Amino acid sequence: MNLNYKLLKKEKNTNARLGEFKTVHGIFKTPMFMPVGTNATVKTLSNDELENLNCGIILCNTYHLWLRPGEDVIEKSGGIHNFMNYKSGPILTDSGGFQVFSLAKPKDISEEGVKFKSHIDGQNLFLTPEKSIEIQNKIGADIIMSFDECPPYPVTYEYMKESINRTLRWAKRGKLAHKNTNNQALFGIVQGGEFADLREYSAKKTVELDFDGYSIGGVSVGENQETKLKMIDYAIKFLPENKLRYLMGVGEPIDIIDGVIRGVDIFDCVLPTRLARHGNALTSFGKINLKNQKFKVDFSSIDNLCDCYTCKNYTKAYIRHLITSNESLGARLLSIHNIAFLNNLCLKLQEAIKNDNILEFRKNFLKDYYKRGE
Amino acid sequence: MNLNYKLLKKEKNTNARLGEFKTVHGIFKTPMFMPVGTNATVKTLSNDELENLNCGIILCNTYHLWLRPGEDVIEKSGGIHNFMNYKSGPILTDSGGFQVFSLAKPKDISEEGVKFKSHIDGQNLFLTPEKSIEIQNKIGADIIMSFDECPPYPVTYEYMKESINRTLRWAKRGKLAHKNTNNQALFGIVQGGEFADLREYSAKKTVELDFDGYSIGGVSVGENQETKLKMIDYAIKFLPENKLRYLMGVGEPIDIIDGVIRGVDIFDCVLPTRLARHGNALTSFGKINLKNQKFKVDFSSIDNLCDCYTCKNYTKAYIRHLITSNESLGARLLSIHNIAFLNNLCLKLQEAIKNDNILEFRKNFLKDYYKRGE
Repeated sequence: MNLNYKLLKKEKNTNARLGEFKTVHGIFKTPMFMPVGTNATVKTLSNDELENLNCGIILCNTYHLWLRPGEDVIEKSGGIHNFMNYKSGPILTDSGGFQVFSLAKPKDISEEGVKFKSHIDGQNLFLTPEKSIEIQNKIGADIIMSFDECPPYPVTYEYMKESINRTLRWAKRGKLAHKNTNNQALFGIVQGGEFADLREYSAKKTVELDFDGYSIGGVSVGENQETKLKMIDYAIKFLPENKLRYLMGVGEPIDIIDGVIRGVDIFDCVLPTRLARHGNALTSFGKINLKNQKFKVDFSSIDNLCDCYTCKNYTKAYIRHLITSNESLGARLLSIHNIAFLNNLCLKLQEAIKNDNILEFRKNFLKDYYKRGE
Repeated sequence: MNLNYKLLKKEKNTNARLGEFKTVHGIFKTPMFMPVGTNATVKTLSNDELENLNCGIILCNTYHLWLRPGEDVIEKSGGIHNFMNYKSGPILTDSGGFQVFSLAKPKDISEEGVKFKSHIDGQNLFLTPEKSIEIQNKIGADIIMSFDECPPYPVTYEYMKESINRTLRWAKRGKLAHKNTNNQALFGIVQGGEFADLREYSAKKTVELDFDGYSIGGVSVGENQETKLKMIDYAIKFLPENKLRYLMGVGEPIDIIDGVIRGVDIFDCVLPTRLARHGNALTSFGKINLKNQKFKVDFSSIDNLCDCYTCKNYTKAYIRHLITSNESLGARLLSIHNIAFLNNLCLKLQEAIKNDNILEFRKNFLKDYYKRGE
């Protein structure tokens, strides 16, 4: 098997850990943030740009690629890396589950799978654990996900219990269906909402199935910081140390830091690219909106502590002009910066783990980030 | 004066000419095509990309920059090259006239200037020859344009005569208003529609005013190929050999070739970027639309004779997927290719002039371009 997680060091004062994950498309160090390339493209960016950003790993969405261009087209091209000509690092695909439960309506959940309508053309579709794995095998990402139910928040204890049991049966079926175990790591997903015992049960039972890594799902829908952190705490202590841990759909700087402190290794979120499209930049001194009138004649870079392509070459005034003129270069320059910001945050977290000072790093980061933010 | 056109060679069999134009931001060889960067950005492209495309000179729109971000912002930033961080070559601004007459309605033309409403917010605006030059002086492009009336096509002989006389008076006023004659070349514009004697009159009288170069306007609105070519023929024979000649708003490959054969040096058009946004690519074998179903599993590049970034890195199938998924990287990759195509066409025309075989080049180009085009 060409896939392997190696735990390199544990931070002294917390559960934070430094590690690396080996795939046939390269090794990435953790903790690491994954930009989201829904349609086999991280919105507005070329692969050269992703490469220059030193993205450890990127995520593509199985649901979207299944509908367009179709997994057979990607397989024919030689797999997702070839299709999008992204050769510089590993790729992860989700199972399609989250999109089926959030984008596609109405849906009809049975033991066999989920019936729903395409969000593009209303076509009737049916996704099962086996089908999700078959599609992901054809897409050919380095890490793939079990098909799970993503219940809304909140649901009753009874519903959640029923749901995680079904998700466990789906996980088992998906594992059996997985055809490319040598080159594609298959991860199991822990659900259970905010119920401590269900998170424990889901984690233990998923680990019993022996996956190549484990995801914690359902946290991004948690409505407040406290609930989100509890969801992580309840699950993560039952995950084995020798496997990668992935917190799904989370990308706010504070959430990344707090996830890492709890022992999470990788994260994904549309946050940096979505913020960019709305004119927002993450900076060392908080989030700023470039549409703000005060940047009209501000000829300084977005963040004087950042050395990304955008900050080296462009001023706030120019980016503001692009955003207010609806020029796509604006979203592109902000996407580059925002992804660089989260990637750099992860590099700093790696450094803090090495130096056993992650709590101090957290304190200093938050002081700057919230003091001058908007 | 830091501006200078040098005629390097005339083609033996036609009026085509090889030349170069010197500005403080570099020299460009002619014939040359200018991509359009309306809002101080060639849509979807970064300046690195423009630099890699070896664009000789690019065009920005005075009307748009006047409204957003305002000429004072650009002046404060140190001029348009600084504002958009485009340091690799010269920039030209138009006068704003064309946009006032095409985008902004209703309008009210008087001897003094044109009253109209902003196409963005309906604000009442007034543009005069002096104001146009003042704005262009502040923007600081290397070549700037006289403010002219751009009548629709067709208009009566009487209206056109009145119009070109007013445009001549405006040209004179603009020339007097020009404050940066050392670093910004001011061009006069020849109008006159399809009337031979009015084109002659407009050309002679504009040349009498002694501009740094001459534009031929009103050709892009001509409704057929024959009319367009006549408009060029009627005007160009009265333009001096020692000045640059600019055919405004023209960018179809055949129009560039036929313009060059008649003695035109530079062209501008939104064609390559607009085609890109609609999924079209210019290729050696004609124009193709990437949305076409037949490209779904076509893993070859757009044009096997092209060595642009897009053709070196991406397949038709992937670009088709981006375009059909409304991903802006699609328009960006096609913009790069389409601009490369027109730039390469101009380089080939320069070569054909050197080799005195431009008519043969035209014949071969058209044979390939129309044989397999759609």
